Amino acid sequence: MANVPVSLKKLMEHFAALPGIGRKSAQRLAFFVLDMPQEQAEDFAGVILEAKKTIHNCKVCQNLTDKEICDICASPERDDGTICVVESPRDVIAFERLQEYKGKYHVLHGLISPLDGIGPDQIRIKELLIRLRDVDVKEIILATNPTIEGEATAMYISKLLKPLGIRVTRLAFGIPVGGELEYTDNSTLNKALENRVDM
Amino acid sequence: MANVPVSLKKLMEHFAALPGIGRKSAQRLAFFVLDMPQEQAEDFAGVILEAKKTIHNCKVCQNLTDKEICDICASPERDDGTICVVESPRDVIAFERLQEYKGKYHVLHGLISPLDGIGPDQIRIKELLIRLRDVDVKEIILATNPTIEGEATAMYISKLLKPLGIRVTRLAFGIPVGGELEYTDNSTLNKALENRVDM
Repeated sequence: MANVPVSLKKLMEHFAALPGIGRKSAQRLAFFVLDMPQEQAEDFAGVILEAKKTIHNCKVCQNLTDKEICDICASPERDDGTICVVESPRDVIAFERLQEYKGKYHVLHGLISPLDGIGPDQIRIKELLIRLRDVDVKEIILATNPTIEGEATAMYISKLLKPLGIRVTRLAFGIPVGGELEYTDNSTLNKALENRVDM
Repeated sequence: MANVPVSLKKLMEHFAALPGIGRKSAQRLAFFVLDMPQEQAEDFAGVILEAKKTIHNCKVCQNLTDKEICDICASPERDDGTICVVESPRDVIAFERLQEYKGKYHVLHGLISPLDGIGPDQIRIKELLIRLRDVDVKEIILATNPTIEGEATAMYISKLLKPLGIRVTRLAFGIPVGGELEYTDNSTLNKALENRVDM
């Protein structure tokens, strides 16, 4: 793009590198940032750095937190005996929106996917097994997406846990097969949580 | 949103404040930034600050630049005798994409819009008149959008310039009425430039 100041061009490129942002949108966003009050732009830049610096995985459940142990793991009001296993922190947000589930979580940060070279060791399954040593867990809810990788990961974890005598459940198929857990509406997600079945 | 680290929540809010970014997209973008390599996130934050700091309006044409006088105004290859008057720097980018127009620009940074309290003094019309004192301008192309505000602004400027004996033209109505100049395809924009008419 000729005759555009370098830093503006770079800003457009950074926005265009974000998922779902095309060239035109990136241009619009860059101009919007230029038009922002100075303070707001500084705040935006600051929060990118702050988020990168302060946010890491919870030592226990692997969800994102700015503390050593996340608020959910640290809460005395949450039931230690139930762990809901999800693919990503976004899925935790989806469940928390329900204000229905009172157990804890475990975030795998991925799904088993041999075609992409992701085996059980590349996701946080080991950390889940370590948790089970210290705490008396009654039920593990496998809440991975109902996709091929999600099903395979649920099956894999289920086989690991069965010998330990823990009840292992799977979200009911209220969620449309092939869909994304993250975008499921609350009532469907609620239904799936209610109707979970032993596996 | 409960149980989400403060800086992550703030990052989502900043993305959600951008035009055309909804709550779900903002969440996705914030997580994407968290997953970026540290260096890329630092670069993103840095470029926001750098763009805000270095970019300002060209002393002559009011287009965005990181120099005192922008590259187009400073270029000896561009014709001083023709000035294309546009609403915003985005419109300059649209024209430059054509690689067809060899004159200069004047960016108004807005349109006259009495309903929004924007009169002729709130946009850069005065700066255009000052330019005409020093340079021998043969033609002014009024290239504001074919909307009510764009038409009113073109009419207003046309009336100011007529007594000066300068040829004042308007982009041809190849552009669909009510549309946005910024999103016009190249061939339509080219047509509109070719068929400009005296007003």
